[in-house]
Amino acid sequence: MEKRIEKQLAFSLEIDKVKNVFRQTHLSGHGRLENDAEHSWHIAVMAYLFREYANEQVDIAKVMMMCLIHDIVEIDAGDTYAYDEEGLKTQKNREDAAKQRIFSILPTEQANELISLFDEFEAYETAESRFAHVMDNLQPLILNNSNNGNDWKEHHIKSAQIYKRQSKTKLGSEKLFDVIDNIIQENIQKGNLKE
Amino acid sequence: MEKRIEKQLAFSLEIDKVKNVFRQTHLSGHGRLENDAEHSWHIAVMAYLFREYANEQVDIAKVMMMCLIHDIVEIDAGDTYAYDEEGLKTQKNREDAAKQRIFSILPTEQANELISLFDEFEAYETAESRFAHVMDNLQPLILNNSNNGNDWKEHHIKSAQIYKRQSKTKLGSEKLFDVIDNIIQENIQKGNLKE
Repeated sequence: MEKRIEKQLAFSLEIDKVKNVFRQTHLSGHGRLENDAEHSWHIAVMAYLFREYANEQVDIAKVMMMCLIHDIVEIDAGDTYAYDEEGLKTQKNREDAAKQRIFSILPTEQANELISLFDEFEAYETAESRFAHVMDNLQPLILNNSNNGNDWKEHHIKSAQIYKRQSKTKLGSEKLFDVIDNIIQENIQKGNLKE
Repeated sequence: MEKRIEKQLAFSLEIDKVKNVFRQTHLSGHGRLENDAEHSWHIAVMAYLFREYANEQVDIAKVMMMCLIHDIVEIDAGDTYAYDEEGLKTQKNREDAAKQRIFSILPTEQANELISLFDEFEAYETAESRFAHVMDNLQPLILNNSNNGNDWKEHHIKSAQIYKRQSKTKLGSEKLFDVIDNIIQENIQKGNLKE
């Protein structure tokens, strides 16, 4: 078999491991914890469905691919919970090392392409990145909302922490920020979330 | 909230259920069974990485979206194993009913768009559909190959059954058919697969 295809197959097999990286979000119906592959699948589908609400025109294939690969580094770096202040301090270093190891399994030019896409997502500076982040922030919110805010209750999350995390959502989608704001306010009223 | 967004959010929540539809393929490392969301994530990433091997030029966003949604009907219809002759007879009727119920949660024009994309995948008549099917057939093969063919052994699958399932792979990618052929032959030689 050609070296190029061998590398692409080896990478495809390596990323299978992201199905065993679990997040802090529970599936709907008070289900088990969600893993990174499932989460990435979900936000890629949602990106396509909600693309009309992006503030700026986006290249949807690029947004979807960003969504699909943004958590692959967690195979080595582990999941860092959005509200884990200590973990967030070391997250970048852990993820940078992981990014180099994992994407470098691919042929060089494809490794560079995916690293660049991952970096673009992280940098939050392009329309595609801003919109992909909206999806990354909206999806756990709708799951948690469907479970009466149990993930917030479990981790003693307050509404100010969520608003802080959602502070850049408006940059990607004014419309979906309003939707998110609506969901947060409803959960405060229901007593699912503390102010 | 606007009715349109409400419907899109309701659909997004509904499809969360596909994370609980399990396939007959085990994860690498002799892991647990894989679910439909994970499988769909995997083949969408692979479609992007392997797009250079498609026989014809493909719209990659379309291929990826096909990959991401092709198993959503299994929320109602369940997974039909590729080598389950009895199940395959009723698969189309079960999936047609599921398709109507699930996609119709979306706003009408978006429901029609996704139904049409799903139908296009099933019909096997466009370049995008043929290439998406290559991914759908290649991905379980690389997982199973990494597990010494245990899924084939468990279900007493013979190489002729695999070649039958792969009969249209060449239409999507001559190159990847050769890769698949290679993997099958290796597994026959190792005694992982009966002729």
